[in-house]
Amino acid sequence: MAEPKKESLQRLCDLHRDAAGLINLNPIQRGGILTEAAKKTLLEWGDGYSVCDYCEGCLGDIKKPPIDVFTHEILPEFLEIDAVRVTNGARESKYTVMHALCEKGDTILLDGNRHYSTYVAAERAGLKVEEVPSNGPPDYRIDVEKYAAEIERTKPKLVLLTYPDGSYGNMPDAAGLGKICRDYDVPLMLNCAYSIGRMPVSAKKLGADFLIASGHKSMAASGPVGLLGATEEYAGIVFRKSEKYKKKEVELLGCTARGLPLITLMASFPSVAERVKHWDKEVENARRFVRELEKVEGIKQVGERPRNHDMIPLETEAFHRISEKHKKGRFFLYHELKNRGIVGLKPGITKNFKVSTYNLTDEELEKVINAFTEIAAISL
Amino acid sequence: MAEPKKESLQRLCDLHRDAAGLINLNPIQRGGILTEAAKKTLLEWGDGYSVCDYCEGCLGDIKKPPIDVFTHEILPEFLEIDAVRVTNGARESKYTVMHALCEKGDTILLDGNRHYSTYVAAERAGLKVEEVPSNGPPDYRIDVEKYAAEIERTKPKLVLLTYPDGSYGNMPDAAGLGKICRDYDVPLMLNCAYSIGRMPVSAKKLGADFLIASGHKSMAASGPVGLLGATEEYAGIVFRKSEKYKKKEVELLGCTARGLPLITLMASFPSVAERVKHWDKEVENARRFVRELEKVEGIKQVGERPRNHDMIPLETEAFHRISEKHKKGRFFLYHELKNRGIVGLKPGITKNFKVSTYNLTDEELEKVINAFTEIAAISL
Repeated sequence: MAEPKKESLQRLCDLHRDAAGLINLNPIQRGGILTEAAKKTLLEWGDGYSVCDYCEGCLGDIKKPPIDVFTHEILPEFLEIDAVRVTNGARESKYTVMHALCEKGDTILLDGNRHYSTYVAAERAGLKVEEVPSNGPPDYRIDVEKYAAEIERTKPKLVLLTYPDGSYGNMPDAAGLGKICRDYDVPLMLNCAYSIGRMPVSAKKLGADFLIASGHKSMAASGPVGLLGATEEYAGIVFRKSEKYKKKEVELLGCTARGLPLITLMASFPSVAERVKHWDKEVENARRFVRELEKVEGIKQVGERPRNHDMIPLETEAFHRISEKHKKGRFFLYHELKNRGIVGLKPGITKNFKVSTYNLTDEELEKVINAFTEIAAISL
Repeated sequence: MAEPKKESLQRLCDLHRDAAGLINLNPIQRGGILTEAAKKTLLEWGDGYSVCDYCEGCLGDIKKPPIDVFTHEILPEFLEIDAVRVTNGARESKYTVMHALCEKGDTILLDGNRHYSTYVAAERAGLKVEEVPSNGPPDYRIDVEKYAAEIERTKPKLVLLTYPDGSYGNMPDAAGLGKICRDYDVPLMLNCAYSIGRMPVSAKKLGADFLIASGHKSMAASGPVGLLGATEEYAGIVFRKSEKYKKKEVELLGCTARGLPLITLMASFPSVAERVKHWDKEVENARRFVRELEKVEGIKQVGERPRNHDMIPLETEAFHRISEKHKKGRFFLYHELKNRGIVGLKPGITKNFKVSTYNLTDEELEKVINAFTEIAAISL
């Protein structure tokens, strides 16, 4: 061991989050904001392996705190799927399914709007990736009817749909794809990192064999934590036990999220189960945001219309024009927003970006709409 | 989505940790207790993906907070190894190396004292496991000289040594094995989940190709979080980039610990870098604990002698004898300790158990020794 440099260590002292207390519009941030109930757990459960005081060999079976009830009763009911496990995140859940179900060299079929981590998970598992492309600009819709021909052509071991995707926030017809996959007898995995915890999702209603969720993205939990739900047909495969250690599930390496990510997920859950019932209000907020911003010439929502999700991808020629004359150049938008207490856009971006209005109060939504329209009215 | 039962949801409200504020002797808990500096970060960095506000595509390269300095400068210096990545835990680090280096069906060679998760990681990767057994009771020593013949016999793709193991806290001759592995040109992975963060560890001095660390076990971090260190020779393999996404490391699925586990690891690190310098005092405390407890007839330390680690496995016939007459039966020890403000033993255990004296203050150590000797003196 060598001694780390003092001036480097100094940089780890007194770490502060720049964005703390501001309105954060980054879609990856809005659904992960802790509830008051979750915040209250932080100090008491902060230490290392805090949830493992009464473990008898399996994380999901711990009774104190009631991880067993959460894992084996609450979550399966909530998602209407036979078995659920808490994982280290949505990407880890996806990899687990791919690795458990497929052999190296097998083909899986994805939607063209899939998250990069879906592709990387397939790469890690050594799989061949085929994709059903979107219909391109400006909607980037995934037409699930196209899967049938692609399933026939590529004979995939697994089909994945991103519901919604993280680029356009489009909500494809998951239930329609569920029927197609059943017809072809190929398992369907829905990546619900941006839906479970925001809106009601039922594996039964959608005909999904696997559901993927993200605690830090959409369930008001500290990262990294996710869920993996599976139907009975596949649960025995993805959650198979070790031959030597009968309580340990091989694909989960025995256990996964063991600490604050799990406790905050559990503590927030009662609020999360409640908030999904008010999804229509969130969709209405997103639509209102789009209506107001599109009153500005040179601002245009892309992705399907009207919005069916809080994620809003925008083309913003209006801001780009200002940046060409503004003394802060392409950083002006970031600074103008920050001066108004709003963050979440990448510094330097003006031509297009995505925001989320999820869980904004009415006052906050008003403030955000006003900020963008005011900034668009800057004349130089 | 179905509505979860109200009475089940109620169980998630007001979650409290039974062990909060007590002295916890469980070896998996003592090294993960948060520092004051880490506790201060909890509220500000609690939300979901808090560390990702300024991400440009790679967790380890984030400048605000200074994850880049921590990952690419501080940790490699601290461990004297070329490249380090933060992972979701020690088991995930081990699986990553096995999966990246080996093909299904390959053989790896482990020590007989390895953690169950090492075995399960190998099982997940589809590997054949060979083991160098310990010399059995009462020492359970791993004689690294035995590896040479086993390497010749089994031709492993990878050799692993647990340094120390989690059952006996034995410190095998890692540097000796480093030389043997170099002679046979086979990579050596040291599982340092119970050493890195407690004592000085240098890959260079030990001749290790891979170092595995656990943030929640030994680096005063909220779980789950770990480290994976690799020499230059192997870093390009285990940290290889996606063919399509040039910033994303395939085996890490793009990124790993994204939230409180990472921030608490960073915030605690200056204290951790300091505390490893006082390892001799920790070893002395463990030896003192053993000396005092062995004054009781029917209490005997197992594992190598004298202790070279804070983990202390005990055979405690003395407590078992009391349990046979005590009105609480085999639960008496748990209750007697708890009445004295001490937890960390499994309820119902009396014949043998392991404890750790790590990071106990002098007063706490005194209190723990007195508790055990008092309880052993109960006459019925």
